Order: sequence, then C-alpha cells, then structure tokens
Amino acid sequence: MTDMDEIDVLVHEVGPRDGLQATQVLMSTDAKLAWIEAIHVAGLRKIQVGSFVPPKLLPQMADSADVTRAAKKLGGFKVSVLVPNLKGAELALAAGAEELNFVMSASEEHNLKNVRKTHEQSLDDFKRIIDLTQSDAKFSDVTVSGGLATCFGCTIAGPISPETVFELTRAYVEAGADRIGIADTVGYGNPLQVKQVFSEVLDIAHDIQVGAHFHDTRGLGLANAFAAFEAGVRELDGCLGGLGGCPYAPGATGNVVTEDLVFMLESMGVRTGIDLDKLLKARVVMEKHLDGEPTHGAFAKAGVPKGFQPAGLAA
Amino acid sequence: MTDMDEIDVLVHEVGPRDGLQATQVLMSTDAKLAWIEAIHVAGLRKIQVGSFVPPKLLPQMADSADVTRAAKKLGGFKVSVLVPNLKGAELALAAGAEELNFVMSASEEHNLKNVRKTHEQSLDDFKRIIDLTQSDAKFSDVTVSGGLATCFGCTIAGPISPETVFELTRAYVEAGADRIGIADTVGYGNPLQVKQVFSEVLDIAHDIQVGAHFHDTRGLGLANAFAAFEAGVRELDGCLGGLGGCPYAPGATGNVVTEDLVFMLESMGVRTGIDLDKLLKARVVMEKHLDGEPTHGAFAKAGVPKGFQPAGLAA
Repeated sequence: MTDMDEIDVLVHEVGPRDGLQATQVLMSTDAKLAWIEAIHVAGLRKIQVGSFVPPKLLPQMADSADVTRAAKKLGGFKVSVLVPNLKGAELALAAGAEELNFVMSASEEHNLKNVRKTHEQSLDDFKRIIDLTQSDAKFSDVTVSGGLATCFGCTIAGPISPETVFELTRAYVEAGADRIGIADTVGYGNPLQVKQVFSEVLDIAHDIQVGAHFHDTRGLGLANAFAAFEAGVRELDGCLGGLGGCPYAPGATGNVVTEDLVFMLESMGVRTGIDLDKLLKARVVMEKHLDGEPTHGAFAKAGVPKGFQPAGLAA
Repeated sequence: MTDMDEIDVLVHEVGPRDGLQATQVLMSTDAKLAWIEAIHVAGLRKIQVGSFVPPKLLPQMADSADVTRAAKKLGGFKVSVLVPNLKGAELALAAGAEELNFVMSASEEHNLKNVRKTHEQSLDDFKRIIDLTQSDAKFSDVTVSGGLATCFGCTIAGPISPETVFELTRAYVEAGADRIGIADTVGYGNPLQVKQVFSEVLDIAHDIQVGAHFHDTRGLGLANAFAAFEAGVRELDGCLGGLGGCPYAPGATGNVVTEDLVFMLESMGVRTGIDLDKLLKARVVMEKHLDGEPTHGAFAKAGVPKGFQPAGLAA
C-alpha cells in the first residue's frame, strides 16, 4: 500500500495526531474515523492516527488504541502512530499499529524536559522497542521509525548543531531503525540548512527511508519541503488544513498544510497518488468536528489554476 | 544606494504599488510617505512607490507623481514606479522616477485585455520609452525595466510556454532593457518550473539585472522565491504584510510577504541589508492607514527564533 512504483513522494498525513494534539478539541472516536477515512479516500497511503502517551498528558489522544484498531479495519493505508517509550510501543503493537514513530529531541535539553531522558537513555528505549518488534514474527512487517525532533533549532537550546543530528541518525541506524524521521518541530529551519542536513542524513541512512516533518510557523514550511525534496527526500509529513497552529505563535500555522504540499508536488510533475478535490472534501469533513478551531492553507481558498494538470493519480 | 557589495540580494518593496492597488483603500499622500519612509528606514534600497496609469483606472495611484517627487526627496533608496506605456513613462520621468517598470503580459490574450496591445505593439512602446530615456543626459541613470507578467500561467490563457517567456526576454534585451522583471502574477508557478525558467532567463539576460516577482496565492510564494534564488536570481520583489490579496481568491495573500522573505534570506546567511525589527515597525505604520484591510505573514506572528543570527546589516 505504499508501493513507490505508483508514486514519487509519499505524503504522510499527521493531522489526527500532531494537528489534533495541539488543539483543545476532544474529538469523538467516530469523528476521527470519518476524518481518517476521508483522507484515505483522497489517496493518502500513510496516516498517523494517534499517540500512545499517557491520557492525562494528552486527553485528545486517549482513544488512540480504539482509533488504531478501527483504522486498521478500514484498510488500504499504513496505520502510523507516535510512541514516546517502550510502554507506548507495547500498547500500539497490541492495537495493531503498522508504523511506530518513536521520538527523541535532537536538543538534549528539550529531550530532558519532554521525556526526562538523556539521548543515551532514549536510545536505550529505542533499542528495547526494536527488540520487542523482532521478538515475535507477527510484528515483522511493523516499521519502527527513529524520529528526531528540533533538528533545526529549539525553543530552549536555540540553534542545534547539524553534527548532533548526524550522530543521532547514525545511532538510530545502528540500532536497527526501519525509518528515520527528521523534524523541524518549531519552524526554525531554512531551505539552505534543510538541503544540507537532509543530504547528509540521506547518505547516513543509505537504503533506509527518510521522512521530513516541517512546521510552517514562520512561513517557510513549503520552501523547506521543496528543499528536502531537492536533497532527495521522498516522504513528507503534512497536516490537512495546517491544523494545530503553534502555542507560541498565536495565529501561526502548525504543520505544513497537506493540500498546499500536494498541490506543490503535483504541479512539479511529482506523483503523490492524491486527488486534490477529494482532499478538499476531507478538509470539510475534518472542519465539521473542530468546534471552530481555525484551519489554514492557501490552496483551499484559491483552488486549481486554469489548465492545471496533476502529475497523475494512482491506478 | 543599491551597492551589491554590502548585500547579497536586493529586496524590492512593491507594497505601495502592487499591494495598495489591489485594495479599496484610498490612502493619503502623507500616509503613503510615512509608510515608504518606515520601509526605507528598515533598510530597503528600492521601493516601488506608485503607478503612472490613468487615475480613473486606479484611483489609489492618482497621486503617484506627488509620491514620486516626495519619495525622491527622502533619498537613500531607488524610487521605482510602474509605467504601462510611453505616456506613463513621460509623466514618471517628469516626476523624477529612478526606475521605470514597464509591463507586458507573457500571455498575449491577457496583454490584449489588459493594455489592448499585441506583444509587438507593447515592444514598440517599450522601445519608445528606451529612446526617450536615451534622448536626454539627465535620464542616463534611470533604469528601464522590461517586465513580463503571467510568466507561469494566466487566468485567461492557462499554461504559458517557457519559450514565450524566453522570446520576450530576448526582445527586451535587444531593445536595450536595463533590467528584466519576471512575474508570477496569479500564483500559478511551482518551484521546479521557476528554477528552470529563471536559469534560462538569467542566461539570456547575461549581465542585465533580473528581478523575480511572486504571488503567494497558493502558498508557494517563498518556495518559488527560494527556487529563483537557487537559480541565481539576486533581486526579489516583496510586499510588506502581503498587502493586497487576490481578487480571485478571497482571504488569499497577494505578493510574497516581505518580512517572511527577508527572514528566509537572512536565516540562510544571505545579506539583505534589512533590519527585521524595523521592518515590523514599518508594518505597524502601514497598518495604521489601511482602514482594516487585512495583512498576512507568519514572521510577524511568530517572531525571531531563539538564538537567531541575521546574516548582517548594512554598514
């Protein structure tokens, strides 16, 4: 279902996780599933449906096990989730998650504040998750992603050395990661920096899939996505309607807006397998359940240019 | 005053022309000048202050001669204006304009509708403007820019062949243009296309300055600006607060947002000579006179990242 013969870039929708968790909306499980189904119908092949963090920390994510089970029943797309630790990974695997996105922060100060672990402790946790998925044949198709947050700067530590990002990427690869996720968590990155960092990360990861996750906090989300694409990245995270914003920047968008990202890629002749009309319909489904939470994005307002030819839809 | 030894990229502020003309605001001459002065104080070295079109077509621009004269008295920046024809050029030169931006549309259908001229007729007009500036030594320092609108697509004609853009660029160069301006008037361009078109345009223009003008209608403004920079473009148009929007896309931004553009460039280590704090102050000055007309942009909401180092300010 993520057959790269039919598409050139895999867009990973993270709205039901990263978007929703940044809002105050407590969406029902049924509403989440209607949204996820609409995204899938638009052609998305990987959707991050929840986060296995303690419900008291993120009540929006309390039904992640139910959402994971139901999403898997829908079928036809990879069910991706976030796991902060071994315990989360156990719960996610029990619910049938197909991709576990473990996250550690490239900024060790941020990591200590966020999950109370040093880099070494987080990497130990990651190895235990790898051991767990390798302990049972029924998990052999599960992708374990080593994610790095704050790779382009941190609200606590400020600038982050690219060398730190490279070292932690190497550590993930050596630990047996199936995927590397590099994130600009707070919208600090710029396109030149993005191009340089991803070129090196892709070299280190070699034949392991590398995903890029950008926030549009300072308007550079799509410029950074283009720079990552130019560096050779073929998996990009997005969030329908740019849901979520940024708690530190009132009115600012959160993740890169999926429909703007897809429009950019398809305009460039890059096949995503995604139908833009259906994506706008999914946006309407999502908005119905957002209790007025603002959405963002330019494409939804402007629509397709006259004579626009998408790169192609999946067979 | 546009000494490229001190800066790497010249940002050409077009808000008082392209931004304002897309609004219903009839701003007083004094208010325009306060705005222009604030932009200049922030470090902008070229500002498009008005348009010499018939006042009945664009009443917002009716005082362009007065604004031009007063802007020139302020000093310290290049006073740029738009001229649609020979008559406009005569008036602009009489007012003391230092850069005349002539515009023809790469889409001949659009050109016929906009200025009722074929490409050949527009080029004849352009040659007459060149002759006029060459007829008198007092105009020897005036820059005459050959501008091409709708280079990446047109709301009437749809897609535009790059070959048309290249042919018209050649015609401008042969006619004696001092500068070439390539515009994505309606936000149809994508970064790959932008990179390809500008690479060729820069080759054709050779040692003639090439400026790029993007609209953010579908969110790709900064990605396109980055692509143009990568192709070698060193002059980029912007509009403070993304003023103006797009009559065809309610809520959409208009020109690329100057402060977001400057943040992107300075983050990349590219010197613009512009002070971001002062640019935000200029935004406040502008907003005071906008009668509630909406402004856009992410940087003004999010501010500088922790530990941010601009590439450098002009001496």
